[in-house]
Amino acid sequence: MTTTLRLGLAGLGTVGTGLLDLLASHSALIAARTGTAVAVVAICARDRKRDRGGHDLARYEWFDDPVALAASDKIDVFVELMGGEGDPARAAVEAALKAGKAVVTANKALLAHHGTAFARLADAAGVALNFEAAVAGGIPIVKTLRESLAGNQVRQVFGILNGTCNYILTKMADEGRDFSDVLAEAQALGYAEADPTFDIGGFDTAHKLALITALAFGTEVDLESIYIEGIEHITLADIRNAANLGYTIKLLGVSVATADGLEQRVHPTLVPVGSQIADVDGVFNAVRLFGDFVGPVMLYGRGAGMEATASAVMGDVMAIARNVRSGAEARTPALGCCPEFLARLPVKPMADIVSHYYLRFGALDKPGVLGQVAGILGRYNISIASMIQPERQIGGAVPIVLMTHEAREADVCSAITEIDRLPLMSQPSRFIRIESQLD
Amino acid sequence: MTTTLRLGLAGLGTVGTGLLDLLASHSALIAARTGTAVAVVAICARDRKRDRGGHDLARYEWFDDPVALAASDKIDVFVELMGGEGDPARAAVEAALKAGKAVVTANKALLAHHGTAFARLADAAGVALNFEAAVAGGIPIVKTLRESLAGNQVRQVFGILNGTCNYILTKMADEGRDFSDVLAEAQALGYAEADPTFDIGGFDTAHKLALITALAFGTEVDLESIYIEGIEHITLADIRNAANLGYTIKLLGVSVATADGLEQRVHPTLVPVGSQIADVDGVFNAVRLFGDFVGPVMLYGRGAGMEATASAVMGDVMAIARNVRSGAEARTPALGCCPEFLARLPVKPMADIVSHYYLRFGALDKPGVLGQVAGILGRYNISIASMIQPERQIGGAVPIVLMTHEAREADVCSAITEIDRLPLMSQPSRFIRIESQLD
Repeated sequence: MTTTLRLGLAGLGTVGTGLLDLLASHSALIAARTGTAVAVVAICARDRKRDRGGHDLARYEWFDDPVALAASDKIDVFVELMGGEGDPARAAVEAALKAGKAVVTANKALLAHHGTAFARLADAAGVALNFEAAVAGGIPIVKTLRESLAGNQVRQVFGILNGTCNYILTKMADEGRDFSDVLAEAQALGYAEADPTFDIGGFDTAHKLALITALAFGTEVDLESIYIEGIEHITLADIRNAANLGYTIKLLGVSVATADGLEQRVHPTLVPVGSQIADVDGVFNAVRLFGDFVGPVMLYGRGAGMEATASAVMGDVMAIARNVRSGAEARTPALGCCPEFLARLPVKPMADIVSHYYLRFGALDKPGVLGQVAGILGRYNISIASMIQPERQIGGAVPIVLMTHEAREADVCSAITEIDRLPLMSQPSRFIRIESQLD
Repeated sequence: MTTTLRLGLAGLGTVGTGLLDLLASHSALIAARTGTAVAVVAICARDRKRDRGGHDLARYEWFDDPVALAASDKIDVFVELMGGEGDPARAAVEAALKAGKAVVTANKALLAHHGTAFARLADAAGVALNFEAAVAGGIPIVKTLRESLAGNQVRQVFGILNGTCNYILTKMADEGRDFSDVLAEAQALGYAEADPTFDIGGFDTAHKLALITALAFGTEVDLESIYIEGIEHITLADIRNAANLGYTIKLLGVSVATADGLEQRVHPTLVPVGSQIADVDGVFNAVRLFGDFVGPVMLYGRGAGMEATASAVMGDVMAIARNVRSGAEARTPALGCCPEFLARLPVKPMADIVSHYYLRFGALDKPGVLGQVAGILGRYNISIASMIQPERQIGGAVPIVLMTHEAREADVCSAITEIDRLPLMSQPSRFIRIESQLD
């Protein structure tokens, strides 16, 4: 071992501090597994004086400007842990790649917006752009899709990709508590942000799904085409109704290759109790996929957190560190496919997807309501698989819960619009998609 | 793309034919993901005339001798799918590495016996030795341990690694059938070999565990130190008793780093109903591990079969193919650690392991039996957590089933030896370890 791989680290929040912890405690292990010493030599963060888990920052050269750090001759690898889709993260990653430096990032927002461009830049420069930590924390889904299962035509991939949402849904189900109540607790515990929109609105899941989709199907990153629906409208009653019908509600990111184009969607989903995905509780994440040769594969682990994310960053750094011993600038194309082969697949419009649906109506307790609802559904070719009337509410309004057979999304939306115009309906109807066919 | 990566393929059984299928159907995908064409150019098998899934073998140069193929100038990568721990597989892999050729193999027996020596040879030659397909079929556990989670100190790893055993145990539980009955069916269906000893005796699991252990803990491969016990003594009564107590019986491979050394063991195990590992049914495999930074991770998928195994082989081949575009002979150390750092950890003797135990005694239906049994257990510091007497048997013999608190294996063995000498005991006592503490 004669050379040290020199890291420039931008961002000293939770993950950055976790990476310093890992490097401090595991230097021998890292050297044994790469044949090279790996060391942070320069850092950049917003506040030079804040305590960072007791680490002595004076050991590292300080940069005020992440772009200057990224392009510095003093580093071999730029580790971007600042976050944010825009500058300075964007400018810094671009500067690093243009300077011919390998980049490791945990920044899903940045890559969801600029991943294709950065993949091209990295390829042109002949350097690695690794981002395992950007998707599902410590779960090795990026490397699995990019390398291990690269010989497969992936048919579908879906997962629980946001720990905050899964924590909230799990708590609601386990403790019979309302969404707002559990959200407030999650915020107090630090599992949810003060402004939780990004998580509970499904946007974080969509960023991760955009990357998973590109890796799975060999396409450019296409965040704009993802249908996004969050969990803020899921009620405790929905969760109880689902349980009575044998389902659990999860926020899923789903991508499916169909004959009509690629489906990419993020939404709350009823999944069968007892299925692997239904059993993923709390802050854990899981990704399940189906490849034409490998069949079904599931990966499960911690989707966030200081240590799990630092583990993923370090795995990416070590892949680059092994090049020192090999004497080679080897890298896997950032998005799995060589950039010149990245496809743009047709997008299947959300209106055209076919699913089973859970429908919840609130109606006045008058005779004939169900007949009118069923009549409208029938006219839109939506047939009912089962029906429950879970509980009577105060003031004469009653909930009606229906499970449909396979129906087209556009038909369901049209039927609901028409049903909501009925004088007997006392509150807006809602629907939740059911995934009983994901393999 | 100007260069073709030339594969020499030795062994045209199920997996070899699956690889030809994959190459035939996915050549565009492989080129897009590696930047290089990948093609089999030469083959070697036992019988030149047998039909191999309709593939036209005349397209490939034929070798009668796998060693000659391995060292041939006509190939870049030697793909060893012959199987067997000895020659010719051993000689062929050695010849390939010595000739400076990358090797991809699915041969767990070969690597369990000679993995450390081959890892050294590959490192000295500066070539890759990849073996994803040797462990848990299509599940990317080798790459996950070797690369993705390389920054972790792994604390434990355990898994269901043999589909034949898991199929038999699942069928026994689901259909209430005897071991021998289900085994005969599995043999008829091709899930079990005519001589099933290798699978049901736990030896196949041990081979895989030996490789997982080396990867997880940075050690030389140490098959000799693995305690191996198969499933042939598991009765339907054991499965029913376990179910009544809230457990499922699985054949696990388990490796745990303890203060007293490394535990490496293969044995039937009671795992709690509802745990992820208990839900792995049929021919599926799963590996669960705990890394100090990443926390718990589980991988699940098909552990065997033509297509899933071909997927794993292809992933390994594609990792090497990417070197063509990079212009680099990059590789990960075969066993995760650079050979000069591979450790030999002290082995924790099986007698010293501490576990909960399921104990089954067959006793004559006379007063005082339970008191005598409990007395002996107490003298060996084994305390009873619960007891059931599941059913009366013919002839006055009754089964007694006990669940213990934590006890030392040596004490359990000594107590059982003593108990079996009691005149009131009508059949040999048996114990099965319980894993309720694996994370």
